[in-house]
Formats: sequence, C-alpha cells, structure tokens
Amino acid sequence: MSAVGSSTQRVDGNAKVSGAAQYTADIEMPGMLHAKALRSPHPHARLVRIDASRAAALPGVLAVVTRDDLEGLNPYYGAVVEDQPVLALDRVRCVGDIVAAVAAEEREIAEEAVELMEAEYEPLPAVFDVVEAAQAGAPIIHEERFETQAAIFREQLNLNAGGNVCSVFRAGDGDVDAGFAEADQVFENTYRMPPVQHGHIEPHVATAVWESPNRLLVHTPCQNPVGLQEQLARIFNLPESGVRVVVPFVGGGYGGKTHARLEPVAALLARKSGRPVQWVLTREEVFLTGRRYGGFVKMKTGFKRDGRLVAREVEVFYDLGAYALSGPANAKTGSYVASGPYRVPNRRLTTYAVYTNLPPAGPYRGVGVPHVAWAYESEMDRIARHLGMDPVELRLKNLVQEGDIFVTGEPLVSVGISDCLRQVASDIGWRGRVEQEDGAREGSLRRGKGLAVIMKSTTTPTASAASVRLNGDGSVMLLTSSTEMGQGVRTCLAQIVAEPLGIPVERVTVSAPDTDVTPYDKSTSSSRTTFHMGNAALRAAEDVREQLLEVGAQALEVDKADLELGVDGVRVKGVPDRGLTVPQLLKAKYGDSVGSIFGSCNFQVKGGLDPRTGKGKAAAFWFFSACGAEVEVDVETGKVRVVNVATSVDVGKAINPLQCWLQNEGSMLEALGAAFFEEMVFEQGQPVNGSLLEYMLPSMEDHPERFRSLLVETPHPDGPFGAKGAGEAVIPAVVPAIGNAIANALGGVNITELPLRPDRIVAALAEREAGAPGEDKP
Amino acid sequence: MSAVGSSTQRVDGNAKVSGAAQYTADIEMPGMLHAKALRSPHPHARLVRIDASRAAALPGVLAVVTRDDLEGLNPYYGAVVEDQPVLALDRVRCVGDIVAAVAAEEREIAEEAVELMEAEYEPLPAVFDVVEAAQAGAPIIHEERFETQAAIFREQLNLNAGGNVCSVFRAGDGDVDAGFAEADQVFENTYRMPPVQHGHIEPHVATAVWESPNRLLVHTPCQNPVGLQEQLARIFNLPESGVRVVVPFVGGGYGGKTHARLEPVAALLARKSGRPVQWVLTREEVFLTGRRYGGFVKMKTGFKRDGRLVAREVEVFYDLGAYALSGPANAKTGSYVASGPYRVPNRRLTTYAVYTNLPPAGPYRGVGVPHVAWAYESEMDRIARHLGMDPVELRLKNLVQEGDIFVTGEPLVSVGISDCLRQVASDIGWRGRVEQEDGAREGSLRRGKGLAVIMKSTTTPTASAASVRLNGDGSVMLLTSSTEMGQGVRTCLAQIVAEPLGIPVERVTVSAPDTDVTPYDKSTSSSRTTFHMGNAALRAAEDVREQLLEVGAQALEVDKADLELGVDGVRVKGVPDRGLTVPQLLKAKYGDSVGSIFGSCNFQVKGGLDPRTGKGKAAAFWFFSACGAEVEVDVETGKVRVVNVATSVDVGKAINPLQCWLQNEGSMLEALGAAFFEEMVFEQGQPVNGSLLEYMLPSMEDHPERFRSLLVETPHPDGPFGAKGAGEAVIPAVVPAIGNAIANALGGVNITELPLRPDRIVAALAEREAGAPGEDKP
Repeated sequence: MSAVGSSTQRVDGNAKVSGAAQYTADIEMPGMLHAKALRSPHPHARLVRIDASRAAALPGVLAVVTRDDLEGLNPYYGAVVEDQPVLALDRVRCVGDIVAAVAAEEREIAEEAVELMEAEYEPLPAVFDVVEAAQAGAPIIHEERFETQAAIFREQLNLNAGGNVCSVFRAGDGDVDAGFAEADQVFENTYRMPPVQHGHIEPHVATAVWESPNRLLVHTPCQNPVGLQEQLARIFNLPESGVRVVVPFVGGGYGGKTHARLEPVAALLARKSGRPVQWVLTREEVFLTGRRYGGFVKMKTGFKRDGRLVAREVEVFYDLGAYALSGPANAKTGSYVASGPYRVPNRRLTTYAVYTNLPPAGPYRGVGVPHVAWAYESEMDRIARHLGMDPVELRLKNLVQEGDIFVTGEPLVSVGISDCLRQVASDIGWRGRVEQEDGAREGSLRRGKGLAVIMKSTTTPTASAASVRLNGDGSVMLLTSSTEMGQGVRTCLAQIVAEPLGIPVERVTVSAPDTDVTPYDKSTSSSRTTFHMGNAALRAAEDVREQLLEVGAQALEVDKADLELGVDGVRVKGVPDRGLTVPQLLKAKYGDSVGSIFGSCNFQVKGGLDPRTGKGKAAAFWFFSACGAEVEVDVETGKVRVVNVATSVDVGKAINPLQCWLQNEGSMLEALGAAFFEEMVFEQGQPVNGSLLEYMLPSMEDHPERFRSLLVETPHPDGPFGAKGAGEAVIPAVVPAIGNAIANALGGVNITELPLRPDRIVAALAEREAGAPGEDKP
Repeated sequence: MSAVGSSTQRVDGNAKVSGAAQYTADIEMPGMLHAKALRSPHPHARLVRIDASRAAALPGVLAVVTRDDLEGLNPYYGAVVEDQPVLALDRVRCVGDIVAAVAAEEREIAEEAVELMEAEYEPLPAVFDVVEAAQAGAPIIHEERFETQAAIFREQLNLNAGGNVCSVFRAGDGDVDAGFAEADQVFENTYRMPPVQHGHIEPHVATAVWESPNRLLVHTPCQNPVGLQEQLARIFNLPESGVRVVVPFVGGGYGGKTHARLEPVAALLARKSGRPVQWVLTREEVFLTGRRYGGFVKMKTGFKRDGRLVAREVEVFYDLGAYALSGPANAKTGSYVASGPYRVPNRRLTTYAVYTNLPPAGPYRGVGVPHVAWAYESEMDRIARHLGMDPVELRLKNLVQEGDIFVTGEPLVSVGISDCLRQVASDIGWRGRVEQEDGAREGSLRRGKGLAVIMKSTTTPTASAASVRLNGDGSVMLLTSSTEMGQGVRTCLAQIVAEPLGIPVERVTVSAPDTDVTPYDKSTSSSRTTFHMGNAALRAAEDVREQLLEVGAQALEVDKADLELGVDGVRVKGVPDRGLTVPQLLKAKYGDSVGSIFGSCNFQVKGGLDPRTGKGKAAAFWFFSACGAEVEVDVETGKVRVVNVATSVDVGKAINPLQCWLQNEGSMLEALGAAFFEEMVFEQGQPVNGSLLEYMLPSMEDHPERFRSLLVETPHPDGPFGAKGAGEAVIPAVVPAIGNAIANALGGVNITELPLRPDRIVAALAEREAGAPGEDKP
C-alpha cells in the first residue's frame, strides 16, 4: 500500500493557512441582511405577549419574526424528539431561548431593533439540578410530552421515571443482587461533571436564502447536513430536495454543530424578508446555544479479594438542558459502557436523559462516555489501592477480550485495549504498584502517575453513501456529505480512494457537503466517518477499479488478474509497455476518450438495541483507548503541572498516522481543559461565566511537557483496510488518568467532582487530614 | 406520460424573477480584488516593450501580470487550436487583445493602474476582409502555424490553401462539372453576412481564487465548464481535479460563453496576488471578446427546367478574427449543409475558417448554418421566380426525405422537414405562386410573404454523463454539468428524470455545473443537451427505477412487471394497498430506511467525419425547421414592418412544449435583429459601434404583430422519448424567410448582403429601375 498508511499532508491545509478558505461568515450576497434574536432573560416562564411593532418600523429592518410567523409550519423540531420550537410559543424554557428575531440591512440596526422589542413573561418555577429535575414533583419543563413518555417508560422498562426524564436506557447482565452478595467488598460512590463548552473557534453561523417559495438554500458549518436538510424540510413542509444545505469550510465542531441550531430562524427570516439573511452568533450566544451535558453518576461496585469485578450497578443522569437534541441517543451510548471495558458478570446500567431549565446541551466529543469513564476509572484505582494491587494488573485481570460477549449481547471484535494499556504504562515508565503509594516529593511538590482505559461504540445502525467519478485525465472525484471540520476527513478519504486505484492522493478531490449533489450520510459524528464513509468510498472506488480492469482486460485480451492499476491507467503486470491510459480505457468503454466512469456505494451497518432488553448490536465497531499521565501537584496551592501524557488508541489501521496523532493530541488538550478548569457556571439558570473572557479554554500553555500518541492496530474485519474510528477515542480516558495521577501523587484523595481545581485539591487534602471520609472509604 | 410532454413551469423561474438568483458578479469574497486589462489599440503589431512598474506601485494594486508571468505555464490555449496566448507574447493580433492585467482593491484603482501602464508597439500590416485574408500574400496573423497547416491542407485535401486559412472542410457527392453540364440553367451569386453580437445581458465575468498552489476555483457563467476546466488545468500544469469550475446562474449565453475568455487572466491574477479576483467585463470589452463569424458565401447552382437541383458548388469563408476558438468545428458544421436540406446529386461544398485582424469570434446559435442558409434559401426563391414555380412546390420537390443518404454518407432519420414547411406555409396563409408575383399594395406599402427551410447537425461525436440520486423521501437529485442559461435545461431534464420514476417534476432537483461534483459533459451547445444529457439523465433514472423495482419485487414477492412506480414508491398494479414506500424500499435494500440509491450513465454517440472524404457520421441527430414570414415594405423609405412570423421545428418529441415555443420565439426575435439592423462595424480593425449605445439589439418593439411556434414531432429512435434538440433550430431559417418576403413584396429585388437595411432596400429598388443586374439575373 502506498496511499493508505502514510502521513499524507492535509489536502485542505493550504487553503486554511493561506486564508483562501471561505467560511460561512465570509459569504456575502447582494441584499444580504443580518439577523439578531430577542432571547429569553428567564430560565422558565410563560410568554404572555410580544410586541415587535416598534422593531418592525425601524428603518432598515426588513423582517421581524415571532411565534405568529410559525402558522402553517411544523413549529417543533429535534433530532430525536421534536421538542424545540423554532421560536418560543407559549413559554420559554431557558435563558437564551429565542423569542423573536429580526433581519436588517446592518448588524447594528438589527441589534437596535431587538432593543425595541417588548416581551412580557410570567415566570414559572424552574429546576437546574439534573437529579432534582428527574424527581417527581419537579417543575415540568415539557408538559405536553410528560404523559406519553412516562407511559413508554412504564411499558418498556417497568419504570416509574417521571417529571423531566426524556429518555431512559437500561442494559444489564446476570443477577446484580446475587453479584453484590457474592462480592468480598462493595464500593459505592457518586461522581459529577459540569457542563462544558465545545470551544469551536468559529461560532454557529448560517446564511439562508429562498430561491423560490419551494426552495431554500442554507450555508452553514454543519456536521450533519443531511439531517439538517431533513429537519428544515419538515419545518417548512418541503420535500428534502426543496432544501439545499451547503457546508463551506468549518472552523471546528466537536459535536457542537451536529444539529439544527440557528438555521430554522435564519430560514424563517429569509422567507419573510425575501432576502438572503446571515446570522453569526456572538460568543455569548454560543454559550447559550450548545454545550456538553453535565452529568451525575451513581456507581456501586462489588469485587472479590483477587480483584475480579462481580457486580456493578450504575445510574447516570445526563443534563439535557431545555431541549433534547440527540440527548437520548447520547445517553444510550453512555449506558452500556457504564461499567467500563470490563467483564462484569452481574450488572445493571441505567442512564437517564433529563430536561433542566439550562440552555440546551448536545453531543460533544465522546458524548455519554466521559461521564461514566471518569467514574469507573476513578473507582478502579480506588479498588486497586484498597486491594494493594497494581492498577494495571487489576485492569488487565478484568478487561474485555477478543470474542467476549458484551453486555449488549454482541461479540467484541478488534479488541486491542490490553495492548493500549500496556503501551501507555510502558511509555510513561509505570513501575507497578509502588507508583500509587509513593508520590515523589520535592518541597511541597508531589509527583504521581495515573492510568485509565475506555471503550466506546459508534452510533449504529447508520448508513453512509459515496460516489466516485473518474475523469478523463485519471483524476478522481469523491462525492461525500462528510464534513471536514479539522479532523482530516478529506485527506483520509482521499487516501482510501487513491489506494485501490493506484493513484497518488493529489489526484483525488473530496467534495464538501452539498445536499444537492453529495449523497446521504448519517452525520460526521461518533468517530464513524473513517469506518462508514471510508467503506463507502473504498467500495465506490473499487467499483471504478473493476470497470477499468474489465475494459482493460477486454481491450488488451488478457485476464483481469494479470492487470494492475497505476497513475497512467492499467498495464499488464510485468510488461510495463503493455497498457492502456485512462483516455484509452474511456475510448474502449465509450467509443471516445472523454467521459466519466462512476462508482457508488451505500454502506450500511445493520444493528440497534431492543429498548426493553438492552440487547442487540450497539456498534458497527468499538474503539478502545488508554491514557497514562504524570503530574506534579503542589500540596500547598493545589496547583497541578502535567509533566507527561501518553495516549494509545486501537485504530484498527492508521490510514494516516500523523492525523491520528493530531486527533489524539487535540483530544488530550481538550480533555485537560475539562480536567482542570472548564465548567459552565449557572446561578438560577443565568450564565455566570458565559463568554471567553470568563470561561477558560486550554491553550498551548497548558500542553504537557511531553506528549506521545501511540497506536495499536488490531485490524477490524469490516473496516476499510482494517481501520476503525479514532476521532474521540482518547478524550474520555484523559480526565480519569489525570485524576488517578493526582490521587497517586497525594497518596489517595477523594475528588469526585470535576474540574480538578486547586481549591478542590487543597480541600480534599484537608478533609483527609481531618479524617473526613476520603480515599479508600467504600 | 405525465411529466414529459407537459408545459411545466420553469424550475429556475422563481429565483430569477424574485432576485434570489445569484450570478457570478454577485459573488463577493473577503479580500476580493477587481481586475482590469490593458488592451491593444492596434489590430496587428509587434509588442516591443511593456512597463507595468508604475501600475504595480500604485497603492491598492496587488498584482500586475504581463507576458513575463507566463513563465513555466502553457501560455497558449484554445478549444480546437491552441493559438491564443493568455496574455500577448510577441505580438497583438486585434484591437482589444489583452496585453497586461491588474488586480486591485477597488475597480477604480485597477482602472487607474491600467492608465499607468506603458506598452510600445511596432505596427504590422493587417487584414480585415475574410476573402482577402485567405489569399496568398495577405499579412500572416499566426506565422507559427502557417507551414504546418498548409501541409495538412495539401496532404489531406490536395489544396493550396494558405495565408490565414486555419481550417478547410470539404464535403461532396457525384461529379460537379458533369452536373453543371447537365443543368438547364446555372445561377451563381455571392452572399455576405456581417459579424454580430450575441447580446447576452450578463457580460463575461469570472471570479478566481487559488485554494492552494495546486487548486484553482473559478466561478464563471460558462456553457462548457468541463472544457474550461481542461483548458485551465493545461495552462497551469494541473490535473483536471486541480481546477474547479462552478457555474452560478447565467444571464444568457447563445454560444458566446462556450469557451475560455477572461478566466485564464483572472486565474493568473489570483495566483499572483494570492487573493480572490473578480473580473466583470464592460460592454465595450464584451464587443472585443466575442461575436458571430462574419461570412462570405459563393454559391453556384445548376437546375433543370422542372425545378430539380442537379449541381451545386459552394465556398464559404468564415471570419474567425484573431483566434480560432471552435471556428474550425463550426465551419465544418456549415460545410455539409451548405447545399441546403436538398437532394443534390452533384455537389462540392467547401468551407474555410480564416483568421483576420478583427477581435475573435466564436460559436453563436446556429454556428455555421445561418450563413449558408441565407445563401441557399435566397437562391431557392430566385430559382422559383425564374421558373415561375411556387417556391413551396420547388422546395418540396428537392427536400431530403426519411432514409436519404446525405452528403456525409449517412442515412437521415427523423426527417420532418416537409411537414415543417407545409405547416408554416399553411399558417401564414401561403396561397401558392401568386404570392411572389403580386405584393399587396397600399400607397407606398407593399406586402409580401416568404419562406425558408434549414437543416443542421449537432456536434458529434460527443459524450454526456449524468448521475441520479434517490433520497429517502423519494425526492431525486440529478447531477449534470449542463448549463442553464435561460433555455430551460433544468426544467427539461427534471421532466425527463421524473417520468420513469413516476414522480412529479417538483420532486427532482437539477444541479448547476460544478466540476468538482457534476460529471463530464461535452458542453451546453449545438442544441445537444435535450438529446445527449436527456439520454444520460433518462438512463440514470431508469437505473434507479430498475433497482427500486427489483427490491420491490423481491420484498413483495411479485414479478417486476407487475409493479408500477409512483410518488409513494412501488405498488402492485391494480392493488393500490399493496406497495412499499421509498423508505421501506431502502430498508429492504440496505437494512435501514435511510440512504441513497444511485443511477448513472455515460451517454456517448460515436461518429465523426473523415477530413479527406467528408464522409462518416456528422450528427447524432439532425434537426429541421422552417420559417414563414409576412412583411410590409415601404418602397419610399425602405422600412420594413414584420406582420407575421410562423416557425416550425421538428423536435422529435416536445418534452416541454412551452419551452419549445419560448426557444423559437427567442430565436426568431434574435434573427430579426440580424435580418434588419445588427452588424458590428469595424474601420481598419477599430470598432465603430462597439457598445450598446451604437449597436442595436432587437427589443419587444421589433416583435412581429403575430408569431406562431409550430412543432412537428417525428420521433427520433435514439432520442429520449423521441426528442431531438430545438434550441437553435429556428434561427437560420428566419433571415432568409424575411429576405424572401421582402423580395416577394417588391416583385423581386437582389439584396445579398445583411442586414436588410432600409438604404439597401431603396438602393436595390433603384438598381432594378435602372436596369442594373438584379433579381432573376443568373
């Protein structure tokens, strides 16, 4: 192989660094208006009255939209649950909920118009804590859904979940009560993760224009253009082909651009004004628009003296905020791995996706897994400490293995997790049990190392379609709706297409998504693209390859097997002079040396879980990763310095090793933010640190002194060239590895809430001194 | 059939009338520069020196390009002959030749910078008349090509064509000398047609940006995006995939936007400046950029007393101007129909494409045919008058018939020309021979009717590829590189795709060309799109249809033949309840109710003519049309009023009758301009009326009082639903029909030069009074 496996330069890199790349906000159209929204100042209120007449009368204002403009449309949308109104109808459910919007000739006029709008509210009781929100008696946020949903829970799960629980998913094995009874020891702890920001440099932005009353064109940096197309079509009662979603260059996504966010309102304004409308959110609005679910995890673990886990019960509460988006699906993704990548014969794993009166959350790299990984990997180190075992040994004793039947009932394949763990342990110089006992000391500084492993599914069942076109000069075009958002998908897919055709990567062009021209894809999320779209692209390219070989074999009167493909066309193996160029092949096929040869593939992985049993097929592939970290903690200030981080991912096959490295390094740095300082703070539903002035994101200053990205390649039998996904594989393992390193540096402390702020570390040390319940207290 | 054959509303109409349609000049990009060219003031000169240093130093100027910037590139380009430099190298060949260009932050700065450029020329002898230019001894315009080309003529045609003859094409039958000897009478005349403007509302315009050193993106209203892509790739030494040509909405083309015009220079400026560059030509520059070939026709006809044509010799000279573009191909198109749609046993037909020192010409609706049609249909009426025959009868006696072997050696199929003639004659109330003898009189006004018929080939061999994608909601996308330039191709193709799938036209979206995503097409020209791309689209849709039927048959356990397709999916014929929706079919095919189903087709018509013999296959299909006109001439002023025009085209099958009407009406009105007042006037190569102030285009004021568009439907066995092309079918017939109507109104006058200006009519009448050689003088 020449294209696949090499660290090819990014195909989109030059455009980005030279400034030639055009982002959505760069688009200008004649007559284009600028949008601005009136947003709710209340976390929960009845919307009594809106008066937009003064705004509408302001010179330069071309359109004002309120709930009255939703007449005749489908006012609610949502990826899983249609619970989000395009504009507030009878009530607002969070601070920042869009109540009305305006489109004006200048941004400043739009802002002024919003100031002129009057909205009257009648405040309602609100609930912000995810566990509280899930209790009976909490203020109900989506009254209209409550009864139906409760009935489903009763029927499917025999469960009296109520209030604001949007979805429940349950997986399990064995007999949990018997398991706990059999255990030598039972640990029970709770863990908490705050909501955090995606922190994509480019804010949410969209440009909408109606080409006709039945034809909407939207430019937006969306990770899920086909899904957005479907939702917009449904809102506006159009066929899918009546909506065209075009994705320009994207300035980062991390899951935050997976769903419709501001596009429905932009489209509504464009429709009313008859003009193109562009809407660029301010950073403050981004904070009110999306984030990672906050989470609360209750974990009870029973284990034997030899370290074997025998029972585990986990309950996880994901805070959706005001609207579900893909919350139920993401919570499900967290459920079946809530007991970790471990063999646990008896387990009951339940996840709840719960509405609160906070701004809506949504998928974020790793979706439901970071929450549970933070819990189960902290627990593993506590158990190891309690048993006096090497945490590596404890993990290896319990880790899932190739061929194991997982809690979902499916056999696991391509399971490189033990290798991942061994790799990072070796790389950070893990020296066994002593590490956790004896943090190196120097003044107030303590050093320690920590480890963590995780597993994650990819969203299944899903489909990805690709089509490949061979041009007359032998260059190739791949049509795909996969979004390049920095992760390198265009480069990776170009490599996958180049390989079977025997051409250099530079001869392959990979489209940006444009629902008019690029085919179906479920979405660019869940680290699924290399596997799913990679398979579709590979098979489409192989389709072209077969056609070339067939024509070549016929024209050259040789067996297909005797031919090979290369940059110049086909040639007879071992006879360099005997071959046909692409124009000659076209001539042989079509009678003229011009034209296109097409290949296509709709790649589908069947699967899915029965909601009653939690059994089925959860993942087209599973990915596994490990992280090892070394930190230095100042016991006086609680400040932590990250000395060394190593990550290892079982990627199946690295299509582009450099890109894997970069994905892992990006994940690692992003996770350090969540580990140490990222948290969105709300007071009574009002954002406290809702801008980049107050909210801290990691920068290169926070980069560890040393970082290594290690790869394990356990080829997946169904992956393109054996590849699996890698994008988000590292992120859930980093935070618990850091937490475990800190605990080891300090000889065991009990911090169960993120981020690992200096004040929390100092407080945990003080607690331990005071003999308060701390480390090793089950 | 429900979609095909109905006058569906234009799918792009709404965007155009509402202003939502985005044209190339509407594009704005951050940092976008504006271009302006320094153009040659000389028709022919050696370029001694260029000094652009003062221009380059002007604040706001980001790039200046001259011949020095072509180093390392392929400096010459051209569709048929690579004779046109991106920027003048050693010499300029016409007024308006691009010598240098500048890109600046504002249009005004670019204009000022051009003023600061200095170019020194050494004038060379120039030649402007096409016949003079073809003679030995004329100043040679492309010296480097002269010897090679002359050798080819000698070898292939045994012909001593020299000087500026770029190409010669010869077709023939029988023994011409024997034919003339056998004739009872021989007529010999010459005809002349001036160059005219295409008159597209939108000027030539392009926006170019380099996304990387190996990746050029050009937006341009081009009729031939793939061809332009190929040319740009060649100029800049890139693979085809290194150039992306995107075609926004187009404000008219008529052939004038078929070839690279300003795109190479725009791309060069963008490369040098590292910025997006937009170039919008002024109307004055459009006049220097493209036009229809002027032509000179020598026609000698031998006929029998009963009206049978027995011999014809035709020589045609097409004035290319300074560069060939597709001139040689267009001149060939004129050659084999130079004796008209008539059976002529002995004929020798020769066309010359000749360089002159006028600005370059290029294809224009009807390409080489209007020139010869003006000649042969004028001759037919003269012969009829001479013989005292009804011109309709004379034509019907000689017209080609179904199955005739044409001069190219191929059998003619789908030949509805006699029906076309009868239709228009009947529609304008043609009453036989008397019409030509006795123009109705009223004071100085004389009424008369006239008729003409024509035939034309479509460019062959060529290929068109299309791909069709079925979405999950049953809507369908057609990917095609066909350019919608007002002719209605998107609507027509949507109808063709909708038909086999049994869905309404509104469910089909048709792409605009984007070479990144839309497949190969030869070009949108030569009225070839309905036939070629229509076939490709139809077969791609049938491919999808077959897949749906196969899946449906399997899932429903019935025979494919028992199923029918409709908007909801497939159903068993006669059993409305038994069927599967598209999502159900997708589920049956792929396991999930989402995804895409693909169909594709590369449609190719083989053919071509042997340049030595003129024999082979000239056309995938031939189209035929007729025009009848009634005029009123004021014999005192020479002013003509068009009372009535009827046109008839054999379209094979009208996919959209209303669009056929509109094409024909547009052609008719365009032809009235050429008939009465359009002519580009040059004095020593300098434009005299080179703007829309001085040059007149027809307006609705010039519309005849009555117009009828008649259609004949002689299904073509290879056409989609029997359809052929219609776009330019009418245009060559209108001018001779008008000319014949004027001659009939006046009882016979001899006007052989276009346009039919009042002064020419008055002069011709005076000539006849004076007994000068006039009508009926062979």
